[in-house]
Amino acid sequence: MQIAIIGLGLIGGSLAKALKENTEHTVIGFDRDENTLLDALSLGAIDSVGSTSLLENADVVYVCLYPADVVRFVEENAPHFKEGCIVTDVCGIKNQVCGKLTEIAKNYPFVYVGGHPMAGKERSGFDASEASLFYNASYILVPGEAPQSATDTLVSLAKSMGFGTIKYCTQQKHDRMIAYTSQIPHVLACAYVMSPRCDEHSGFSAGSYRDVSRVARINAELWADLFLANREELADETEELVRNIERIRAAVAKNDRAELVALLSSAREKKEKFG
Amino acid sequence: MQIAIIGLGLIGGSLAKALKENTEHTVIGFDRDENTLLDALSLGAIDSVGSTSLLENADVVYVCLYPADVVRFVEENAPHFKEGCIVTDVCGIKNQVCGKLTEIAKNYPFVYVGGHPMAGKERSGFDASEASLFYNASYILVPGEAPQSATDTLVSLAKSMGFGTIKYCTQQKHDRMIAYTSQIPHVLACAYVMSPRCDEHSGFSAGSYRDVSRVARINAELWADLFLANREELADETEELVRNIERIRAAVAKNDRAELVALLSSAREKKEKFG
Repeated sequence: MQIAIIGLGLIGGSLAKALKENTEHTVIGFDRDENTLLDALSLGAIDSVGSTSLLENADVVYVCLYPADVVRFVEENAPHFKEGCIVTDVCGIKNQVCGKLTEIAKNYPFVYVGGHPMAGKERSGFDASEASLFYNASYILVPGEAPQSATDTLVSLAKSMGFGTIKYCTQQKHDRMIAYTSQIPHVLACAYVMSPRCDEHSGFSAGSYRDVSRVARINAELWADLFLANREELADETEELVRNIERIRAAVAKNDRAELVALLSSAREKKEKFG
Repeated sequence: MQIAIIGLGLIGGSLAKALKENTEHTVIGFDRDENTLLDALSLGAIDSVGSTSLLENADVVYVCLYPADVVRFVEENAPHFKEGCIVTDVCGIKNQVCGKLTEIAKNYPFVYVGGHPMAGKERSGFDASEASLFYNASYILVPGEAPQSATDTLVSLAKSMGFGTIKYCTQQKHDRMIAYTSQIPHVLACAYVMSPRCDEHSGFSAGSYRDVSRVARINAELWADLFLANREELADETEELVRNIERIRAAVAKNDRAELVALLSSAREKKEKFG
């Protein structure tokens, strides 16, 4: 197949490398930065630099841009996708992106399937990309109204790239779950390092500090967009979190050891049960 | 030297194993559980099972019990420590323990130095202990009024066990910093997994979920004691955290992208600067 990758950042670059390393498909790379394209070519992460005519021959298009740019790209390029072409994205939020792309796809002969590879790291850009980024990761698919065959193609590609789990859901379920599993840890990490004690943590900290603060090394522009594109779900989940912090704080404030042990034990049981 | 270890749990067991593996000192083990003592003996983690006469010959005593039990043990055994014996503990809070033990030490010829090896894991007990637990970890010492020679002895032992950093401070500073570096991550992890979304996280989660939730596999009894023994500092730090979460939430609620990017960028800068 001819596979086009739009945007060779951390995710797009890693998809390109993983496809080249694990499949025989032809990978065509698009990026606004010429040096990135040259690096990708020289490293063998792509077979050729993209052009409109190459895009018109693509069987699968991974649009690996920020949410608003994904919509803009598909709006502008919809007339160039060939009939039956599978267009997918990698955005960390789905309601806004899937809704708009599903609408656009109704007027053109391409197929849209929402996608979200659950992998990342604290660095961004093509230099940080790697073929093994998705190894054992989860790949969430939001098929919407797409035919089964399109989803099957993406799953087959994902498995060849090393993804460990495939999860299907609606865009609403995706955004609700992602607010919890991904956005809240980023809110927390940032709020945590804002404490004046952060400045002096060295020598007083160990694994638990390191783990909670890790994702504070955040891509601020990207995550601001992701948070704002999921405002209601994130607000609900933040309220849930603050409510639970307050339950623990209240037990401490009241010096209520029995209540505190009960709360911590229930947390332990949940962690042991759900992993 | 003759080194006594009181309580062969995760920390005491690891100290015993690390001392036996890295030094020529004699290690004497005390534990209320006979099977633990037999295991420790057969694994070579201790040279002999403790007795009052062996305690009376000890040059260094590591009391590796829960905070209240540390105080009780030292109260009861103060008459048995030999002149110049160095008594230390491994508690995660210091105000309560150091205050009381410093008082007791004034009436006896032994020397007390507060200690806190910054290492742990999600399992507890002797079975979870290991000689390498302290490798590259930080060892916080609260010397109080102890002579330099006593602190030097503990530092020398710590270095031979592989500790990477030695930090000296007052008990007040210790408890303030620990509320932030260690207690807040445990509060957070427990509050985080209390969300109903935790039950369905599988397939939707990746590294950031795993890292924030890790220490929810908590020793509830121990941490309830640690939280309650540091109520004021923990309350202050919890307020600081909730205030910062609310700043991020407010920017999201107002759809204020500039403010949100500024907050996340400031968090990133702090993480990059302070690690």
